[in-house]
Amino acid sequence: MDRIDELFAIEEIKRLKARYFECIDDQLWKEWGALFCEDATMDIAGDQPGPDSVVQGADRIAATVSGYLVGARTVHHGHTPRIEMLSEHDARGVWAMQDLVIWPEPTVPPGPFRRLQGYGHYHETYSREAEGWRIKSLRLTRLHLELS
Amino acid sequence: MDRIDELFAIEEIKRLKARYFECIDDQLWKEWGALFCEDATMDIAGDQPGPDSVVQGADRIAATVSGYLVGARTVHHGHTPRIEMLSEHDARGVWAMQDLVIWPEPTVPPGPFRRLQGYGHYHETYSREAEGWRIKSLRLTRLHLELS
Amino acid sequence: MDRIDELFAIEEIKRLKARYFECIDDQLWKEWGALFCEDATMDIAGDQPGPDSVVQGADRIAATVSGYLVGARTVHHGHTPRIEMLSEHDARGVWAMQDLVIWPEPTVPPGPFRRLQGYGHYHETYSREAEGWRIKSLRLTRLHLELS
Repeated sequence: MDRIDELFAIEEIKRLKARYFECIDDQLWKEWGALFCEDATMDIAGDQPGPDSVVQGADRIAATVSGYLVGARTVHHGHTPRIEMLSEHDARGVWAMQDLVIWPEPTVPPGPFRRLQGYGHYHETYSREAEGWRIKSLRLTRLHLELS
Repeated sequence: MDRIDELFAIEEIKRLKARYFECIDDQLWKEWGALFCEDATMDIAGDQPGPDSVVQGADRIAATVSGYLVGARTVHHGHTPRIEMLSEHDARGVWAMQDLVIWPEPTVPPGPFRRLQGYGHYHETYSREAEGWRIKSLRLTRLHLELS
Repeated sequence: MDRIDELFAIEEIKRLKARYFECIDDQLWKEWGALFCEDATMDIAGDQPGPDSVVQGADRIAATVSGYLVGARTVHHGHTPRIEMLSEHDARGVWAMQDLVIWPEPTVPPGPFRRLQGYGHYHETYSREAEGWRIKSLRLTRLHLELS
């Protein structure tokens, strides 16, 4: 792969993830879901072990995550992306992350808690589709989680 | 616009904003003001509604922000820039941000408070001048603000 | 230096530092030490004034830092890198940083404390070796440190 194409693709994937963070914190769920491949998978077993921890399909991913976050105030930040091209149409990446979620009411089990401050990594793959790069898979691992 | 020129301009704008953060936290006000176009605008109505919330001119921007922060200890961080070139000489960008300000004494109204921890976005435009890229406009929106 | 080579080298140095953060927080000390030049220097006098504050040699750097952090839970994040190429084989950079360290037991002097939350900058140089870019020198300065 040409090095300019590679650098350009890496920048596009960084913008894709930037948009992911903007849409999740502005609660633009339709726009957020459209950042994933239609058959994408999300694995947040580190946070929410149980039947919902691995979700498949962009629509179900958006429905699951909005189910946790609607009504809450959230901040999600991503750091130091390490993106590797696997082919012209496939890439993978690791992002350090930090999030803050403040719910208006104590959450249901595994709560009750009103505030989550967490740190970890997103392990992701990306696919270049007709409209541009999309998230193909996302797995969240945690370094530290503070609940109160 | 050539793709190498575009990638290079994006990297230069990221460095400009990196310098913005270094100078504000090291309180290098002259260097910080020089990162703005002479006729730049800053809109921080989200933080400070009132007559000072929109400021025009690099000198007045530096005077206004240093007025809030001189004597305080501050940390300003920017994340996941999404920079778009509008022409060879114009660009716009969104940055996620986080800031921490600790004043030595309780602030005047709208205080009193001694500690601000905040999260939000910078919505910016940039202009390429003879000496390089400068910030043309900056608007700060907030996701969450904690004052104590 | 060719601009594509420059952009590519900058991206490689960003990946090097991303790996630095991944390895330190996953406590992969061998991999972490291998990110430094064999004769690298680390200066953390801002945090730990004393005879150990300046350390030379990749092995001693890894031994010193792992000595502080083994058994602790840590999060280290880097922001807004400003990388400058000095030649095809030499570069320097500044990174804003934030770290969180939680020890299972109160630390020995200069403690006792169990939690460190800090903010500052890494001032670094890099060298391109046969296997790729490595950290040649690292100096940590602090903006703010909270110990409890």
